Amino acid sequence: MGKKIILLGATGSIGVQTIDIIREHPEQFSLTGFSAGRNMELARKIIKEFEPEIVCVQNEQDAEALSREFPRTAFVFGGRGLIETAVYDADVLVNAVIGSVGLEPTLEAIKLGRTIAIANKETLVTAGHLVMESAKRYGAEILPVDSEHSALFQSLNGEKLEQATKLILTASGGSFRDSNRDQLKDVTVKEALDHPNWSMGAKITIDSATMVNKGLEVIEANVLFDFAYDDIEVLLHRESIIHSMVEFQDTSVMAQLGTPDMRVPIQYALTFPDRLPRPNAKRLNLAEIGKLHFREMDYVRFRALQLAFDAGRTGGTMTTVLNAANEQAVALFLDGRIKFLQIEEIIERAMDAHNPILSPDLETILHVDSETRKTVLNMLK
Amino acid sequence: MGKKIILLGATGSIGVQTIDIIREHPEQFSLTGFSAGRNMELARKIIKEFEPEIVCVQNEQDAEALSREFPRTAFVFGGRGLIETAVYDADVLVNAVIGSVGLEPTLEAIKLGRTIAIANKETLVTAGHLVMESAKRYGAEILPVDSEHSALFQSLNGEKLEQATKLILTASGGSFRDSNRDQLKDVTVKEALDHPNWSMGAKITIDSATMVNKGLEVIEANVLFDFAYDDIEVLLHRESIIHSMVEFQDTSVMAQLGTPDMRVPIQYALTFPDRLPRPNAKRLNLAEIGKLHFREMDYVRFRALQLAFDAGRTGGTMTTVLNAANEQAVALFLDGRIKFLQIEEIIERAMDAHNPILSPDLETILHVDSETRKTVLNMLK
Repeated sequence: MGKKIILLGATGSIGVQTIDIIREHPEQFSLTGFSAGRNMELARKIIKEFEPEIVCVQNEQDAEALSREFPRTAFVFGGRGLIETAVYDADVLVNAVIGSVGLEPTLEAIKLGRTIAIANKETLVTAGHLVMESAKRYGAEILPVDSEHSALFQSLNGEKLEQATKLILTASGGSFRDSNRDQLKDVTVKEALDHPNWSMGAKITIDSATMVNKGLEVIEANVLFDFAYDDIEVLLHRESIIHSMVEFQDTSVMAQLGTPDMRVPIQYALTFPDRLPRPNAKRLNLAEIGKLHFREMDYVRFRALQLAFDAGRTGGTMTTVLNAANEQAVALFLDGRIKFLQIEEIIERAMDAHNPILSPDLETILHVDSETRKTVLNMLK
Repeated sequence: MGKKIILLGATGSIGVQTIDIIREHPEQFSLTGFSAGRNMELARKIIKEFEPEIVCVQNEQDAEALSREFPRTAFVFGGRGLIETAVYDADVLVNAVIGSVGLEPTLEAIKLGRTIAIANKETLVTAGHLVMESAKRYGAEILPVDSEHSALFQSLNGEKLEQATKLILTASGGSFRDSNRDQLKDVTVKEALDHPNWSMGAKITIDSATMVNKGLEVIEANVLFDFAYDDIEVLLHRESIIHSMVEFQDTSVMAQLGTPDMRVPIQYALTFPDRLPRPNAKRLNLAEIGKLHFREMDYVRFRALQLAFDAGRTGGTMTTVLNAANEQAVALFLDGRIKFLQIEEIIERAMDAHNPILSPDLETILHVDSETRKTVLNMLK
């Protein structure tokens, strides 16, 4: 039967690609359970194809309707349902939900020593210290799914972490990498959603355009690999071919490269320490690409990245504020209620207004998260 | 005292850089013994600085003179002396001699289960099957020193070899990378010795210009990693920043990067699986470099590389012929007795004239080697 997979966030971009991989390797993986939000059409398709044991949806009514349709599957719903799904018996929990809603289910699965493939960076950003401490205590393995962190993880494979001197995250620059700040003032939602390299969900595409995404990744790298912020560097690399690099104390730099395809790091998290074939995937052809470009990061142009480094260095609940303010601001931008550059303004104002609490517990984090969202909404009044 | 090092070829380019590393890390390494050719001035300096237990020189007279000067060191000479030095008690044997003279001493050290850091590619090219079979039988570890093979080795670290699908060796293109074949007809020795990226010995610099060096590396990669020639690719990469890459079956490509500095791969072979600091070394700064270029290899322009693939695919003594014909031809070119393009003509004629013997023993290899050199000299009559 291979590895039993529980997939939180099955109908999102990472979720759909995770399912592609499970479908391609029926000998290696089975989909034991998943969570979906409100996309019932896609949820039905997945249930028919994989006949999972447990499925979580957002609303009780949807859960009841599905129960009648698929009597052999257990249906749960809401926040409690998400936790029930996360702790359901499996080999790997893939956390691919968007936003900090993924935090509690992840912590519960960690308590069971479960291997966690984590695509939900907000969980690490808001409560990284809780997740990593808990993972250590319960012997749970945390495997990155993000292409950058997977690249760092692969570059560190077989190496000693204490002999690594720098993590170098590459950044494509997002939808507006060639625009100056003046040109950013009036960009539309449609323009912001047009990422040059990666096909991703809406929220993360906006986060790429603001560079908040890279900022969250920097914080995630700090958490996952226990690296000081001074030893994490962001490098502009427009082609997204080198997915990230690690410098070692002998000056060697190890890197992971590939065509931009999220299924590669997702699959690696499911197969680590092995690698499975990806039969129909496009292989990297550097001669065809011809040139790779690199440029120093501009922290004035990409103000939000500076804010993320600031939040990370401050620590405590400040990263929760960064993340919650950003989630709320992106939602407002996608709704057409604020302009693009207001996203980073809102983050900065929320951070300025916050008195950080160090080593916060889960309750404090959730409280700060919801308070920050309110603060942001109040800014619009 | 750290690791005891025996260094064959101490006065050559790799040898001198190996000594730099031993000097930089007195806690980690000691120079137990070395061989030098005829550079007695440098040999004396090394003896004074490191007080080794055994030293091999080329001539008996030099050995006797040194014996009187340095009574606490044992001096040996010639081919037998080189073997005596190679098998002298140590943790790592660094084989940095030039040419196939390194073969017998290496095989003798392997029989003692010694760890071999091998910079002497001719040993692997002429008798790779003997070396690797023997290393397996006696449990001797063979560590590559060449920057490309070190990069492949580092990229394979922590991975399963059977999950790797392609070895991608990068090639700067050498001194004449931007010249066409017509322009190569009348190049001088001085021009050929001017390598754009790497500071190396004369023989290897000429081999880089003819692309024979890359050909020897392809054969070496086939031997070291047991990879079919169809799964070894050469990619033109003028900056020599990506030292080589490995593609895996999940389409991931792992790469090792760095500024062109042979001391990094040499040191890695001495410290593997650890990495030691290189305090004064130049760190890689990709933003400063700005662009990395890649181009498909041109096997018509670089005819000698095609010949190396042909020799490798034929196997048996054909790689010995390639190597011996090249060594003899390069010596003739450096002596001003033949023109640059005659190097590859001579290799091709020697290969055409040879009836390969499969799975040759050491005696056969040495015989073919010396016969090939004679054949080449006869071509000039």
